[in-house]
Amino acid sequence: MRQAKKKLNMAMVGSGFIARAHSNAFHQVAHFFDIDYSLHTKIVCGRTQPKLDAFAEQWDWEEISLDWESVVGRPDIDIVDIAVPNALHAPVALAAAATGKIILCEKPLAMSVAEAEQMATASRGVPNLVWFNYRRVPGIAFAKQLIGEGRLGTIFHYRSYYFNQSGTDASKAQTWRYQRSEAGSGAVGDLLSHSLDTAMYLNGEISELSATTHTFAPGREIDDAAQVMARFANGSIGSFEASRFGVGRRNGNGFEIYGSKGSLAFDLEDMNRLHFFDATDPAPMQATRNLLVTGPGHPYSTNFWKPGHIVGYEHTFIATLGDFLQALGRNDQFHPNFDDALKVQRVLEAVETSAISQQWLKL
Amino acid sequence: MRQAKKKLNMAMVGSGFIARAHSNAFHQVAHFFDIDYSLHTKIVCGRTQPKLDAFAEQWDWEEISLDWESVVGRPDIDIVDIAVPNALHAPVALAAAATGKIILCEKPLAMSVAEAEQMATASRGVPNLVWFNYRRVPGIAFAKQLIGEGRLGTIFHYRSYYFNQSGTDASKAQTWRYQRSEAGSGAVGDLLSHSLDTAMYLNGEISELSATTHTFAPGREIDDAAQVMARFANGSIGSFEASRFGVGRRNGNGFEIYGSKGSLAFDLEDMNRLHFFDATDPAPMQATRNLLVTGPGHPYSTNFWKPGHIVGYEHTFIATLGDFLQALGRNDQFHPNFDDALKVQRVLEAVETSAISQQWLKL
Amino acid sequence: MRQAKKKLNMAMVGSGFIARAHSNAFHQVAHFFDIDYSLHTKIVCGRTQPKLDAFAEQWDWEEISLDWESVVGRPDIDIVDIAVPNALHAPVALAAAATGKIILCEKPLAMSVAEAEQMATASRGVPNLVWFNYRRVPGIAFAKQLIGEGRLGTIFHYRSYYFNQSGTDASKAQTWRYQRSEAGSGAVGDLLSHSLDTAMYLNGEISELSATTHTFAPGREIDDAAQVMARFANGSIGSFEASRFGVGRRNGNGFEIYGSKGSLAFDLEDMNRLHFFDATDPAPMQATRNLLVTGPGHPYSTNFWKPGHIVGYEHTFIATLGDFLQALGRNDQFHPNFDDALKVQRVLEAVETSAISQQWLKL
Amino acid sequence: MRQAKKKLNMAMVGSGFIARAHSNAFHQVAHFFDIDYSLHTKIVCGRTQPKLDAFAEQWDWEEISLDWESVVGRPDIDIVDIAVPNALHAPVALAAAATGKIILCEKPLAMSVAEAEQMATASRGVPNLVWFNYRRVPGIAFAKQLIGEGRLGTIFHYRSYYFNQSGTDASKAQTWRYQRSEAGSGAVGDLLSHSLDTAMYLNGEISELSATTHTFAPGREIDDAAQVMARFANGSIGSFEASRFGVGRRNGNGFEIYGSKGSLAFDLEDMNRLHFFDATDPAPMQATRNLLVTGPGHPYSTNFWKPGHIVGYEHTFIATLGDFLQALGRNDQFHPNFDDALKVQRVLEAVETSAISQQWLKL
Repeated sequence: MRQAKKKLNMAMVGSGFIARAHSNAFHQVAHFFDIDYSLHTKIVCGRTQPKLDAFAEQWDWEEISLDWESVVGRPDIDIVDIAVPNALHAPVALAAAATGKIILCEKPLAMSVAEAEQMATASRGVPNLVWFNYRRVPGIAFAKQLIGEGRLGTIFHYRSYYFNQSGTDASKAQTWRYQRSEAGSGAVGDLLSHSLDTAMYLNGEISELSATTHTFAPGREIDDAAQVMARFANGSIGSFEASRFGVGRRNGNGFEIYGSKGSLAFDLEDMNRLHFFDATDPAPMQATRNLLVTGPGHPYSTNFWKPGHIVGYEHTFIATLGDFLQALGRNDQFHPNFDDALKVQRVLEAVETSAISQQWLKL
Repeated sequence: MRQAKKKLNMAMVGSGFIARAHSNAFHQVAHFFDIDYSLHTKIVCGRTQPKLDAFAEQWDWEEISLDWESVVGRPDIDIVDIAVPNALHAPVALAAAATGKIILCEKPLAMSVAEAEQMATASRGVPNLVWFNYRRVPGIAFAKQLIGEGRLGTIFHYRSYYFNQSGTDASKAQTWRYQRSEAGSGAVGDLLSHSLDTAMYLNGEISELSATTHTFAPGREIDDAAQVMARFANGSIGSFEASRFGVGRRNGNGFEIYGSKGSLAFDLEDMNRLHFFDATDPAPMQATRNLLVTGPGHPYSTNFWKPGHIVGYEHTFIATLGDFLQALGRNDQFHPNFDDALKVQRVLEAVETSAISQQWLKL
Repeated sequence: MRQAKKKLNMAMVGSGFIARAHSNAFHQVAHFFDIDYSLHTKIVCGRTQPKLDAFAEQWDWEEISLDWESVVGRPDIDIVDIAVPNALHAPVALAAAATGKIILCEKPLAMSVAEAEQMATASRGVPNLVWFNYRRVPGIAFAKQLIGEGRLGTIFHYRSYYFNQSGTDASKAQTWRYQRSEAGSGAVGDLLSHSLDTAMYLNGEISELSATTHTFAPGREIDDAAQVMARFANGSIGSFEASRFGVGRRNGNGFEIYGSKGSLAFDLEDMNRLHFFDATDPAPMQATRNLLVTGPGHPYSTNFWKPGHIVGYEHTFIATLGDFLQALGRNDQFHPNFDDALKVQRVLEAVETSAISQQWLKL
Repeated sequence: MRQAKKKLNMAMVGSGFIARAHSNAFHQVAHFFDIDYSLHTKIVCGRTQPKLDAFAEQWDWEEISLDWESVVGRPDIDIVDIAVPNALHAPVALAAAATGKIILCEKPLAMSVAEAEQMATASRGVPNLVWFNYRRVPGIAFAKQLIGEGRLGTIFHYRSYYFNQSGTDASKAQTWRYQRSEAGSGAVGDLLSHSLDTAMYLNGEISELSATTHTFAPGREIDDAAQVMARFANGSIGSFEASRFGVGRRNGNGFEIYGSKGSLAFDLEDMNRLHFFDATDPAPMQATRNLLVTGPGHPYSTNFWKPGHIVGYEHTFIATLGDFLQALGRNDQFHPNFDDALKVQRVLEAVETSAISQQWLKL
């Protein structure tokens, strides 16, 4: 006799690229994670009927709606997933929180710290998640584990970059990501937010920073690139650079961490790998190890395929959701949640403030 | 109004690792490929009830059966998928062909050329597929395209290897893959079959060969490794090496192709990449290009995610099935089918014969 | 009949590691470069007799002296080479300039901008060179050529790093490189100076910057690491990071340059390679090209060995000297000279000033 | 007081590319190795006066001669270096041996086993060396050390390749390397000889083999490529492939070795690196280590520069000569000598025999 699972009805607001990635995770999570819930892709909300019909057909959503406000509070909905432009995160999340729904929200959490604080406060009573999915890249999760085991010793340097070339594509300039009213910022919210979440996950709080932003495209109202010099609470120093003008990089999201006992390096374009240098090896054997993080013994390696069998972009969403639902089953706090994302938002805002004041800021 | 799709009921025989990969493809294909069919995971057949129950639960199979023979011919079944040890491929396929089912079969097709011929003959009237899934790695499909465009010129060398370390794991020695009666051969059928299918896909027929096989583990009844020197019909020369004793390689399935105008290299552990050297560039600019085969303009890049967003092992099965179902919709012949796999089987058998006779053999 | 070459007598001040690299270049330059001069390793000056004797024996210096001041002005000396700690660069150079010698000086040129200005002024009448040897890495020289041809288009980002782990070796803390009075600074003068010379060579003047420095080792009087955010005169933005606490990096001196038409990347630990991404290729063929910069058609490839035959660290000194002597023969200005190094010195001083003031500085 | 060194007068026969590499080593060896000898580049022999004059000028040879036979036996000559086409190796070596000279000879030793035996026999009384210089690549010497320490355990596979693209250059077809009378063979003697020497150095004797050779260029009288399947005396199996039609490879001379405890990989185009996989590490930490073989603790790292400072092609000749002269000083047997090269010659001849007979051969 098959075990009875608790059915959870989902409403998703959004039907763009990231909504595909979320939908995929909703369908796939039970194939790879042992969870007590059965997710039902009940209703997807969007703005354009024919596009929404096609989306619902392709991703098995039972209903569609052009009016998310009428959906979010429906009693038959258990989970609200937010996969819309940044400006809508707060309205949807606050509405969902008000009716006690479980909330899943795309990153960056909000348009401002004020908004993020409001969202975090409102949602503290409901299980919630922010889709900083890269924490669940197996190689990044393994980096977290190695750092936790003290394998790097005292950390000296945290170096981070996120480069793609999206900003050089003039056709994209009309999309929401390039409008201040919808996106809030450019590379800062889009790319640097990921880098900061990963950095704070791996290396702890940032205590002060100096930053600059730059817009390469004439007439563009948001930043195309950002640079940050930072000091972490643990005494290490950090550098961050994010750009949509990194011609030749498609998804060049990486970091290097140098400590007294070793160092780590990662790049999302080669996401099944983690590079580890162990300075405790005998000198002639010290070398960068090119770890293929597909098992045995690596995070998520028993969930997906076999050692040597590559996983991809979508698995980071599946693993995020899998961990969330398992935490839900245990009644545990999940991370990253709205409070974690609020911390990221504080740093994002400090970056923008420093870029204007040209001063160092304490956080 | 949503378009009506033709529903196809599936029966799968097998519930091991590869049955997971197939099941995943059955559920995922409609999310990524535009097809006229709706696949229904109707019934999965296996040998052990509790394991089969769990499998069916995890992968959404509606029914289970411990008796595949009673299932394969059921009138409500449209497609039979064969995901069992090699010795069972022929019995299941012949039974399925006899009742006119669409047949999907794991590789290698058969235990012998005789068996493969019987299977190919029997199934010529029904749509069929052999899961040589690596043809649909985007980088390999792109290699095929580049070769077809003449980008390599006259081919000189085809070099192939498939190394993993599975044979060094004593615990695996009890599984079916190490029994001659169930597997037929070792590295030859397991690994070399993939290499040969890829080689013949990319570089055409093999006309003669000399081979050797070797068993490293004492008392093991099948080969652990194989080497082949070959000549292709197009005048190029080939080398193949496959081993389960390649310590340090988890899924080291690769090739290099050298031609008068350029060369290509690929390795499955880095499966989102294809290396291309263009000898028609001006001399100082000639270099190996490290192509990230995630688009734009690459095979399957519009099916899955965005440029720079990695795909993995499972996508090769999804793409194979997507192409198969699209061909089915157009009433086109799909490749690789039983006839293609029969050609591989002829080479596999020549390898084993040559390894015994220590002679060159013409094919 | 062999061509008569003009003999130039050399005096070198210094007998440490870098003096070996210089000596090697003096002996090797005529083997690889067609020059009108015959260099004679006449006299080497140092502080410790037995060490100096051994050095002179190993590197074929005819005489030794413990008193450089008595040597530099000798009428039989044509060239003075400065291979001593930074604090002595100015005294030796000024003495050599005063007697009209050709001067070769290690980097960084001086302890301060004031000193560097004095040196540059004094030596304007004599041929001079500063050993920013990395300009003559074939890959960096080729990068310069590609940029000059407009292959990168408008430059957006210049990213630079120089990481080694020398600072973590407590035994080195007693050497001159860790004394402010002898070295002037730490990673700034030692490592960042190279990065800045390369940057200004490839990407032009820096117009403003904000910087920070950090000392990890307790009680150390100089910096262990530095970070810089910069704006270049050409409108691109730059980031620099240099550290002696980059555990796992031995000579990790690299850069990335992103422009509208393509990008470049280089790392000294892999110094025979240059990575070039050409964004003017058709989209599916765009990829990072891994150029093996050993010819044909690459800088210095006809001087040294054959395509595919690796050159190393020492060849950068040989090529610097070869170019210098060829320029000397043509009576041409050589670069980098004292004036070029003075520009670097101005940036180094701005870095240290900004690190204290925590302000952006215009240059 | 400087130590008196024994002066050795050198005569070199040959003035082509490889004679440059030898000359360089003669001048450089004392800079990097502590030896009891002072080499004097006395006389270089060649066929064309102007070219020889220029060569002698560039490489500091005191005299030139167009008649090697009159030089080799001169009483003022201590060492004869053979840097001429293969057909002349035996005549020069036999003449040199007859007058008791120290002999250094390019590889392959001879045109045939018969010739090689005669040379080995004749030279057993004199110190001798064959320029299989790649044994002294630091990474290969370190591989030897790791294998000697048992770090790979029982060896399963030895895989070797040597690919360049020289054969596709029609202009080279007129040179001696493409004439059977001067070269003896093509890729076999030129490339495969290096691969075999390295293989036997690292993995011991080859006991049997099956081989094939191929000529791609119409009308060419020697082989362009060769393939070998081999069994080693230690029970491992080997594969070798060498080609002058490896378009895109300039000096692609590499190997992989797989054993029960680990594996190694090396490629000459990246010659400062050795890749080591340690299967005795805990499973999640097992990974290929990318060793930068420039110290500390690596072969020759104290001879040349510092850790992280790359060495190149020429250093393999310098290190070979340094080891030879140190062995000479200790009156020790040096390897590889004529007897070692004779063993390689036996395998080369077996390769050619097997390629004709299409049979396996025991050695």
